[in-house]
Amino acid sequence: MTEALTPRPEHKFTFGLWTVGNPGRDPFGREVRPPLDPCESVRRLAELGAYGVNLHDDDLVPPGSSVAERDAIVARFQEALDESGLVVPMATTNLFGDPVFRDGAFTANDPRVRRYAVAKTLDAIDLGVELGATVYVMWGGREGVEAEAAIDVAAALDRYAEAVNLCCAHARAQGYDLRFALEPKPNEPRGDLLLPTVGHALAFIDELEWPDMVGLNPEFAHETMSGLSFTHAVAQALWHDKLFHIDLNAQRIGKYDQDFRFGSEGIRDAFYTVKLLEDAGWDGCRHFDAHAYRTEDADGVWDFARGCMRTYLILADKARRFAAHPEIAEALAAAQVAALAEPTWSDTSPEGLAALRAEAAGYDVAALAAAGHGHERLDQLVTELLLGAR
Amino acid sequence: MTEALTPRPEHKFTFGLWTVGNPGRDPFGREVRPPLDPCESVRRLAELGAYGVNLHDDDLVPPGSSVAERDAIVARFQEALDESGLVVPMATTNLFGDPVFRDGAFTANDPRVRRYAVAKTLDAIDLGVELGATVYVMWGGREGVEAEAAIDVAAALDRYAEAVNLCCAHARAQGYDLRFALEPKPNEPRGDLLLPTVGHALAFIDELEWPDMVGLNPEFAHETMSGLSFTHAVAQALWHDKLFHIDLNAQRIGKYDQDFRFGSEGIRDAFYTVKLLEDAGWDGCRHFDAHAYRTEDADGVWDFARGCMRTYLILADKARRFAAHPEIAEALAAAQVAALAEPTWSDTSPEGLAALRAEAAGYDVAALAAAGHGHERLDQLVTELLLGAR
Amino acid sequence: MTEALTPRPEHKFTFGLWTVGNPGRDPFGREVRPPLDPCESVRRLAELGAYGVNLHDDDLVPPGSSVAERDAIVARFQEALDESGLVVPMATTNLFGDPVFRDGAFTANDPRVRRYAVAKTLDAIDLGVELGATVYVMWGGREGVEAEAAIDVAAALDRYAEAVNLCCAHARAQGYDLRFALEPKPNEPRGDLLLPTVGHALAFIDELEWPDMVGLNPEFAHETMSGLSFTHAVAQALWHDKLFHIDLNAQRIGKYDQDFRFGSEGIRDAFYTVKLLEDAGWDGCRHFDAHAYRTEDADGVWDFARGCMRTYLILADKARRFAAHPEIAEALAAAQVAALAEPTWSDTSPEGLAALRAEAAGYDVAALAAAGHGHERLDQLVTELLLGAR
Amino acid sequence: MTEALTPRPEHKFTFGLWTVGNPGRDPFGREVRPPLDPCESVRRLAELGAYGVNLHDDDLVPPGSSVAERDAIVARFQEALDESGLVVPMATTNLFGDPVFRDGAFTANDPRVRRYAVAKTLDAIDLGVELGATVYVMWGGREGVEAEAAIDVAAALDRYAEAVNLCCAHARAQGYDLRFALEPKPNEPRGDLLLPTVGHALAFIDELEWPDMVGLNPEFAHETMSGLSFTHAVAQALWHDKLFHIDLNAQRIGKYDQDFRFGSEGIRDAFYTVKLLEDAGWDGCRHFDAHAYRTEDADGVWDFARGCMRTYLILADKARRFAAHPEIAEALAAAQVAALAEPTWSDTSPEGLAALRAEAAGYDVAALAAAGHGHERLDQLVTELLLGAR
Repeated sequence: MTEALTPRPEHKFTFGLWTVGNPGRDPFGREVRPPLDPCESVRRLAELGAYGVNLHDDDLVPPGSSVAERDAIVARFQEALDESGLVVPMATTNLFGDPVFRDGAFTANDPRVRRYAVAKTLDAIDLGVELGATVYVMWGGREGVEAEAAIDVAAALDRYAEAVNLCCAHARAQGYDLRFALEPKPNEPRGDLLLPTVGHALAFIDELEWPDMVGLNPEFAHETMSGLSFTHAVAQALWHDKLFHIDLNAQRIGKYDQDFRFGSEGIRDAFYTVKLLEDAGWDGCRHFDAHAYRTEDADGVWDFARGCMRTYLILADKARRFAAHPEIAEALAAAQVAALAEPTWSDTSPEGLAALRAEAAGYDVAALAAAGHGHERLDQLVTELLLGAR
Repeated sequence: MTEALTPRPEHKFTFGLWTVGNPGRDPFGREVRPPLDPCESVRRLAELGAYGVNLHDDDLVPPGSSVAERDAIVARFQEALDESGLVVPMATTNLFGDPVFRDGAFTANDPRVRRYAVAKTLDAIDLGVELGATVYVMWGGREGVEAEAAIDVAAALDRYAEAVNLCCAHARAQGYDLRFALEPKPNEPRGDLLLPTVGHALAFIDELEWPDMVGLNPEFAHETMSGLSFTHAVAQALWHDKLFHIDLNAQRIGKYDQDFRFGSEGIRDAFYTVKLLEDAGWDGCRHFDAHAYRTEDADGVWDFARGCMRTYLILADKARRFAAHPEIAEALAAAQVAALAEPTWSDTSPEGLAALRAEAAGYDVAALAAAGHGHERLDQLVTELLLGAR
Repeated sequence: MTEALTPRPEHKFTFGLWTVGNPGRDPFGREVRPPLDPCESVRRLAELGAYGVNLHDDDLVPPGSSVAERDAIVARFQEALDESGLVVPMATTNLFGDPVFRDGAFTANDPRVRRYAVAKTLDAIDLGVELGATVYVMWGGREGVEAEAAIDVAAALDRYAEAVNLCCAHARAQGYDLRFALEPKPNEPRGDLLLPTVGHALAFIDELEWPDMVGLNPEFAHETMSGLSFTHAVAQALWHDKLFHIDLNAQRIGKYDQDFRFGSEGIRDAFYTVKLLEDAGWDGCRHFDAHAYRTEDADGVWDFARGCMRTYLILADKARRFAAHPEIAEALAAAQVAALAEPTWSDTSPEGLAALRAEAAGYDVAALAAAGHGHERLDQLVTELLLGAR
Repeated sequence: MTEALTPRPEHKFTFGLWTVGNPGRDPFGREVRPPLDPCESVRRLAELGAYGVNLHDDDLVPPGSSVAERDAIVARFQEALDESGLVVPMATTNLFGDPVFRDGAFTANDPRVRRYAVAKTLDAIDLGVELGATVYVMWGGREGVEAEAAIDVAAALDRYAEAVNLCCAHARAQGYDLRFALEPKPNEPRGDLLLPTVGHALAFIDELEWPDMVGLNPEFAHETMSGLSFTHAVAQALWHDKLFHIDLNAQRIGKYDQDFRFGSEGIRDAFYTVKLLEDAGWDGCRHFDAHAYRTEDADGVWDFARGCMRTYLILADKARRFAAHPEIAEALAAAQVAALAEPTWSDTSPEGLAALRAEAAGYDVAALAAAGHGHERLDQLVTELLLGAR
């Protein structure tokens, strides 16, 4: 199994500069790890078998850098990428760290803040595209409110849509090969965030000017915080053809945003997510938006990164075994799982509907009601598969 | 204030037969109240000043009734409606009580169960329309799973859409003046339910054959269970022009589905919901999908119903005071709430975007960042308004 | 591994009559499985390798039975036990199903209800002891409130303590070899329950008349509903020498009381609970307070029961492997786990405290702060152990 | 009402230096407010009518200060206190900000860290007592774990108890008039914290060497994060005579630690907490452990502080009205609330228990079961009282 568990670029594992570079600050404590040179992150990730590295504008180019400084930084980073073979498939904007965004960015009440946020994003899009990114993530971490009276939600959604449209217009005008991926989150750092779940973001996209350019970047932790099924969220995003990117990590329901190592909590949920991606032939990146525990020093950071990828590979292997397991196949048949793909009734004409009613009137409903579905057996088989006992 | 707090039909308060008729059974205990004759419910609700009464098919017509029995029941019920002046604005199907739906209804793996569920719904639609309903609610209480391997989510969404399309086809063929309202819920009675939030349901509608016929029935308790803002959910539904019905009640985050008396928990959230509906000029019903505590006898049921309506009226009055309160107006201005209605930037041409960047480059970002927004003052004013101290 | 996964009586697995006999009723749906004869449950559990069966009074003897009926039922049940070799290690009272307990049992405001609840419990204690029980569980499922004004919590705790004291007095007077185990739960079926967590119940015991007779019956689902660590709760109960019984099942945080098959959700949490019990040499029963999914027929019930036991055995095996695994041992050493057993400072005299301060003043705090603890590596090793990849 | 809402020292309102001084940093964003001079905080709080100010050691004396620096700082601060009339009733230690505590303080695996934590606490106790504190709070914000294998919970509880004992020994040796108050929290910044609820901490105290010296400092936000009733927690702490201090703020269930302005969320819960304290004649401080929203500048901080106190006073007034309200009195009587204070049965002898059973056997259980308890009416009266409509 050892070789199978060795990450390689074709597995398309990616990390953010902000993930391995996370210094371990939290609401109650200072940084515990020194800043990490982005070029060093690139080298280490390449050594570990990653495919790419993603970034916020500020992760690479300190705010306030001159154009010359910026260009020098980018050139040095590009060199590290070239040497290591790592790519930058995704980029994004930091619209949350600077106090200027304390009341929102795209949906700040102050129009100047909104304009500044859009302008910063246009710059960051240029940077991302320059580095090769084809997916641009938008996480609206400050688009929300605590004092409910201070926000007009309808106006905020108008402004949110307007900002996304402005970014799309820029990408179109520049001829960028770029798609945008919205990243929903229910709360934290704001009391309530706009577009709190994958569903809300999917619906929102339909109101945009160029809906085809915009999709989703669902995150395991963010859906899980609300107690929602991340796997179902990803499945619905796929169903809408809107899975543009994915953020993998681990999280407990109803707790602060934890961003733990993928698979460290919620093993079963992690498995079903991996199985969904692998079964769907997902060809995008497996991005880990997570960071090492605050207990860790620099070595622990690389243990963390290695662990994310190994667990994914183990679970992907289990997804293959699931598909090949004769008892599981039997249990799936008993549960009639494949029968859900059959249309229920195809003739929607009045006559067709009458025929449907006539057919249903002939059913022995009590007999249908008495049938068991074998889900305990099926679920136990999966549990044992996960535990390596099958 | 007494007269202002007296519910009248023009307030459009409605209750379900299943709400005042709830016998108080729960997972650990038997029924505590005797069955309530639907006609008695109609009379009592009319006396209390309600506008209408809503129902599931089975609430009125016991399953297994002959056509003659059904017609007699309906005629007697219609008579009670006529006498009392109450209307039936909404109807729905019970697709969750019978064991036949133990693995789902529209998305059961067994195609026969799916057909039976659709046929039962077509019958229930006919019943609802006969009684005057113009909104038809669809709550997929059994459309979900515990043993994740037993469901193919993409296929389930296909079947769900298919079932809604079949119902729409029926309404169109019959020339019914009827719109459908999906009611999302995250979990309970299934481990995870499909279309778990308002957002997921809004997105789903865009994939239907007749999306204009289908909207939302958001429920306070259901969004709140997940810790999401119900007010934001309703606001987003309104933003999409998809608020077709609304279920008001009370609920604690992260607990079992409580369906408490409106306003009994979450006073502040209830206020903002009422304010949103009143400010938006919502002309649909204020439906209370709740029930009396299990501690109550029959008298307590009517205390419960009276309380839902009184609290709504008190909060609607506070919404009016909010709009007229000079200090609140001042605080709203300080927080620049109205400025969110201004477009951020209207020129999306390359030149326009260049101008936006140029303008933003001229901002004194540090000064913008230093500005406070006065949300503590604003929020405290609202708290005091709610507490009757303003 | 097959033989190792075969449950045998010495594993001390027990089930409640109400668990395998659960008919699948839920708040939204009727029973889906026919009643199960308790004697049949005994036979089937024995075949599956269980050690014992536990019961509420009403599970075995229908309320309202005459003395003669009761005795006949008990004799027949005892015969089934004798034939099968199963024992009844624990018994409890149903103080929640009858509407008389709608406002509480031991803490109902009406003193007659409280007396009735105590009297019913004394009868049930006699029944339990007659069947051989040495542990008596008390779950206060109705001891709570929705309308907060309706309860005086201090008085309720007084009455709760009084009722437990009355039961202890009875057991002492009768010379029963019986210990009582309180089972905490945070909510459901009441809005808030008294003694909501293991901690609250542990503290409460200290105020009882015979605290040595009373301990805890922590339940996985109940602690987990609140997002608390069940393993830590059990560890603290053990630390206080108060683990008298344990209820194993599975549950998601922040959801309705699910009582799923042990290990079906929360694999990692289940592992640490098993590891704790096995490492502590826990010689009590491994009781599964869970039930089959509502999708199941009678066969599924036994799949459910088999699955609970198999998963426990798999996890117990992993606990042994954990203890023997050289890399895990290395990681534990790196994390200094054993060093926590060393006293911090033993001399509490003024001189001793001065010496402690002097020693600490000499530490290189920055160096201590810089040290990493290797938790990522350790946790990943456990994850891989669980997944069968180690 | 205006005068009644003006905070005065006899109301015993206190704030932490860290609360009004909170600079608005969060996990995703930098500080938004400049540091606040502790002497300025003292002056402003006094002007607003507060009674006292509390502090962590590091809030006042920067770590690394020389003895002379420390003494100068303390003298200047004492002068500000004297001038303003404010007192320092409570002090505590910062055992969470420095990276040295990344794996815990009193329960860190490394014995040197544990010793350093105890020594730092002894210094901080001396500082607190010097400033007049009689309550010393212990919040174990780092006493927890993410990688469960890295902690031996039983050993951790041993070390926790040992550390508290060492601090008690110091206070006794110095003859300090000081009591210790443990502050429980379920999680954040660690995945799971030890002593996660009021209950766990109450139980823990019974194992200490000087249990009379140690009580509780329950915090609204911390119990509420877990969905537990804060009012019940405080009531149980009072029942054990262990309420030594209290932290008031606001929080949503199942979200990150919000520490919002008291009463801004959970108005009804806030009311019942105030009512409990006022009814119990609580003579300790009303401490607000909260901070202004990150949207606020310095002015907003004082709006925040003013709001906490005003809302408390409004709710205390409502508690008085509750006691005097004739309809509420009637509803309380109907719900038999006072009857819970009557003993259930006082004779615990065998004869007494036999008499209890005989009496209960004579009850008309069906009649008792049929009685309603009027909780809907009672709860609605409270809702209307809160809304100022009664």
